Amino acid sequence: LRRLCPDGGMIVVLTGGTGGAKFLDGLRKVINPEELTVIVNTGDDFQWWGLHVSPDIDSVMYVLSGRVSKERGWGVAGETFYCLQTMKQLDEPAWFQIGDRDLATHLIRTNLLAQGKTLTDATAEIASKLSVGVRVLPMSNSRVETRINTPSGEIGFQEYFVQRRYQDLVNGVSFNGAEKAKAAPGVVNAIMSATAVFLAPSNPVTSIGPILAVAEIRQALRDTPAPVVAISPIVGTAAVSGPAGSLMAAQGLPVSIAGVAKAYEDFLDVLIVDDADKSDAEKLEHYVLRVPQMKTIMRSEDDRKCLAEQALSYTIKNVPRKISVAS
Amino acid sequence: LRRLCPDGGMIVVLTGGTGGAKFLDGLRKVINPEELTVIVNTGDDFQWWGLHVSPDIDSVMYVLSGRVSKERGWGVAGETFYCLQTMKQLDEPAWFQIGDRDLATHLIRTNLLAQGKTLTDATAEIASKLSVGVRVLPMSNSRVETRINTPSGEIGFQEYFVQRRYQDLVNGVSFNGAEKAKAAPGVVNAIMSATAVFLAPSNPVTSIGPILAVAEIRQALRDTPAPVVAISPIVGTAAVSGPAGSLMAAQGLPVSIAGVAKAYEDFLDVLIVDDADKSDAEKLEHYVLRVPQMKTIMRSEDDRKCLAEQALSYTIKNVPRKISVAS
Repeated sequence: LRRLCPDGGMIVVLTGGTGGAKFLDGLRKVINPEELTVIVNTGDDFQWWGLHVSPDIDSVMYVLSGRVSKERGWGVAGETFYCLQTMKQLDEPAWFQIGDRDLATHLIRTNLLAQGKTLTDATAEIASKLSVGVRVLPMSNSRVETRINTPSGEIGFQEYFVQRRYQDLVNGVSFNGAEKAKAAPGVVNAIMSATAVFLAPSNPVTSIGPILAVAEIRQALRDTPAPVVAISPIVGTAAVSGPAGSLMAAQGLPVSIAGVAKAYEDFLDVLIVDDADKSDAEKLEHYVLRVPQMKTIMRSEDDRKCLAEQALSYTIKNVPRKISVAS
Repeated sequence: LRRLCPDGGMIVVLTGGTGGAKFLDGLRKVINPEELTVIVNTGDDFQWWGLHVSPDIDSVMYVLSGRVSKERGWGVAGETFYCLQTMKQLDEPAWFQIGDRDLATHLIRTNLLAQGKTLTDATAEIASKLSVGVRVLPMSNSRVETRINTPSGEIGFQEYFVQRRYQDLVNGVSFNGAEKAKAAPGVVNAIMSATAVFLAPSNPVTSIGPILAVAEIRQALRDTPAPVVAISPIVGTAAVSGPAGSLMAAQGLPVSIAGVAKAYEDFLDVLIVDDADKSDAEKLEHYVLRVPQMKTIMRSEDDRKCLAEQALSYTIKNVPRKISVAS
């Protein structure tokens, strides 16, 4: 595997869960995992059965450790759900599917937090146990809670996304606690000293959005000398998967690469878009990298590696220093 | 099923886990379960993976709800251990075997306690969910911790019993916190208003002992007008199962029915012993009920029902009022 960051810098990736994790899976196969630092959304974290669940951190760790269920794209391969079935029989909430193996992760995390460890420390310890091999940092050790404002009231992200299968109309999204939240240890420094910073093709509103809602992190993205490169999760006028489209619309963003660029406009150097995206990107010309044949939709393992490889090559070759961005 | 307590009294049973639970299994099949109140040892309770585990309460609930594994005598029938296997792979402690279905019980209990519920309330709620059908009371909502003093230091009961398979020499047993502990709500009243009180054939030192270490409970056993009847867990000079023998010896008690009688001497009316026990019971004549053919060793389901039936019949017939006991 190539060493890309001979000066000790790192490839830093900001990510949510499933979509971003696919990009990470490609990256870990084309660069030295020791050169990768991942900063993960914790706005989806919630208490479930009294346990602290960090869905995006877990998705990232399961993908990077090779444990993920390839069929589902989340959770652990070969998983069973006997505890969940029992909980359901005993009239406990059962809409969030925690498997028997997955439970181990949440038990260990909850126990570490109860002992006074931070989420940063707990994540490092679990990542080590899972042999993740990549530095995984939660965005913050403060509680930042993504809340979805719907016509029937405000609900938590997992309630919106998993329990109600993102069928509600969305009036807006808020990040409770973000205004007071500090970046977790290592996050700002990782961004400032990076060789390149990528924003994974995750939902700009509820996956990358909570990370950017931490003021210190957004400022670091503006200040870093490293190129900041996003991979668009939107192709044409629709999200590759999930509710990114309606969430972007609810935040007043166009559902297009222009919307993604707008969400990141104060710090973005380059937006990598799918070759098939036919948007008029003229107004975005400073941002857009549309490589012939580049696909951002990752259907196969090869797609993941290919996107990672191309994103890295073009970034390293063509964005050697911070590009001045028209405001 | 017979109604034994037409005056609203109850058959009250003090018990530990496995041995006592077999007796309860017999009882619930020969009397109306609504007439049964069970007071359970919590001296074995401990924190495991950050969860509050109450081994004896769980054994009793699993037996009374018909969920127990008949092969193991503890835990849930048809159990799987995928979470445990994962914990082991991740270098977490794995000597206490919690199954995937069993986990549900501990998760619910821990969550209820974290919400400020008492162990009494949590037990009632779980018993209701499990359709236990019998009133199950923890002995105390205070923390009473059975500690085993061994040549290599003091250890918790589960460590002694499960992790180290009761191979250590025992110098003594203590019940940390017992001196300050109050009986849980309902316990004293159940004993005082009982039609009959049974001490199940559980270990007198570490199953019944912690219950008796709560001064209010021991006093209630002395004061109750109901007959107090113990079934001996010792036949001849050995325990029917487990480490009761060496624990009794460590407490200075003879390992015989005389030792059992001695452990309960300040409140016991009748000690039911196995017909095969050939001890010289002359000195214990006030206590001993040795019914021809009565077996206290419960190998089959019929044995359980038979013992329960005989213990009840003889108690109701022959001990209509408190017998004065020579001190």
